[in-house]
Amino acid sequence: MQKIVLASNNKGKLAEFQQLFAPLGVELINQGALGVGECEEPYFTFLENALTKARFASQATGLPAIADDSGLVVPALGGAPGVLSARYAQTQGGEKSDSANNAYLLKALENIADRRGFYVACLVFVRHADDPCPIVAQAFWSGEIAREARGEYGFGYDPYFYLPDLGKTAAELLPEQKNSISHRGQALQKLLAELKAYV
Amino acid sequence: MQKIVLASNNKGKLAEFQQLFAPLGVELINQGALGVGECEEPYFTFLENALTKARFASQATGLPAIADDSGLVVPALGGAPGVLSARYAQTQGGEKSDSANNAYLLKALENIADRRGFYVACLVFVRHADDPCPIVAQAFWSGEIAREARGEYGFGYDPYFYLPDLGKTAAELLPEQKNSISHRGQALQKLLAELKAYV
Repeated sequence: MQKIVLASNNKGKLAEFQQLFAPLGVELINQGALGVGECEEPYFTFLENALTKARFASQATGLPAIADDSGLVVPALGGAPGVLSARYAQTQGGEKSDSANNAYLLKALENIADRRGFYVACLVFVRHADDPCPIVAQAFWSGEIAREARGEYGFGYDPYFYLPDLGKTAAELLPEQKNSISHRGQALQKLLAELKAYV
Repeated sequence: MQKIVLASNNKGKLAEFQQLFAPLGVELINQGALGVGECEEPYFTFLENALTKARFASQATGLPAIADDSGLVVPALGGAPGVLSARYAQTQGGEKSDSANNAYLLKALENIADRRGFYVACLVFVRHADDPCPIVAQAFWSGEIAREARGEYGFGYDPYFYLPDLGKTAAELLPEQKNSISHRGQALQKLLAELKAYV
């Protein structure tokens, strides 16, 4: 069975990825289990951050690697929180937590009428650290930033990420339902299709 | 009609792109017509070179931009000519021409049994130079490097790029046939699909 390292230490993410990759005869291993630490994510694109993480994990392990970079983009806020989604409050003196991030987001949107936003997930696969042809799969999920939290599932900005078509926030969706339509779920499906067709 | 700058000065490429983008209500303009010069392509991935060219053209014009980076990868040669495909002979003291590049390629493969190779095309679209979500579309075209040239069409390595399924080299395909199955044709179709679905 081919081994691929997942450049993440998130156990929930690993389980989701493993389920989708098993039919391809691929065993996914979290980088933490191989002793790989965190790497810098200094770029303003999800693409370049994911590429950097994939290369770092592949370099450290000698295995092909998959990395994911994702976040919430609110055009009326100039794209914030963007690549800083996980540490949005931190960048402004707050703590690193979902609740602090959401509080900063609501505050920033207080007097703004255009509350549209989209989640983006960018996945990058490299066969080795010097791979001239990294495989990229990126997907979007459009919604609006609600004024009040709803729902118990998900994480991050999900309780405020309202989906007009469904009349629900992302945190009101069961995990399986979310995975089938979310930015990350769509990006994973794209990546699988690309890898199946890969030279 | 929305204007997009094409980060290329190749007239053949412009015509091919224009034909495909017209139905989207998009007018493509070559960067040369807007006074944009060449930019550096210092990376070892097609992806990062295309991203750099797209940003450069968008920064210079204030328009959304599409860039393309493409080349031939021969695994038995460690990936050469790769991102240096257009200047392969030049990097070894030869001249910048298709015939010099092909001569160097044949020489490098002289004693190598595994003559498999693939063309890759990577297209990148940015809405502006600081776009946090560049759109990437990449495609491959697999073949073998023939020992003798055949065909009058195409350019670059096409006369030596043999397609076993068709029993022809890429240079023996009529332009329309080549565009429908080539790396660049496939990447363009992917990019169109991505842009139609774009947030």
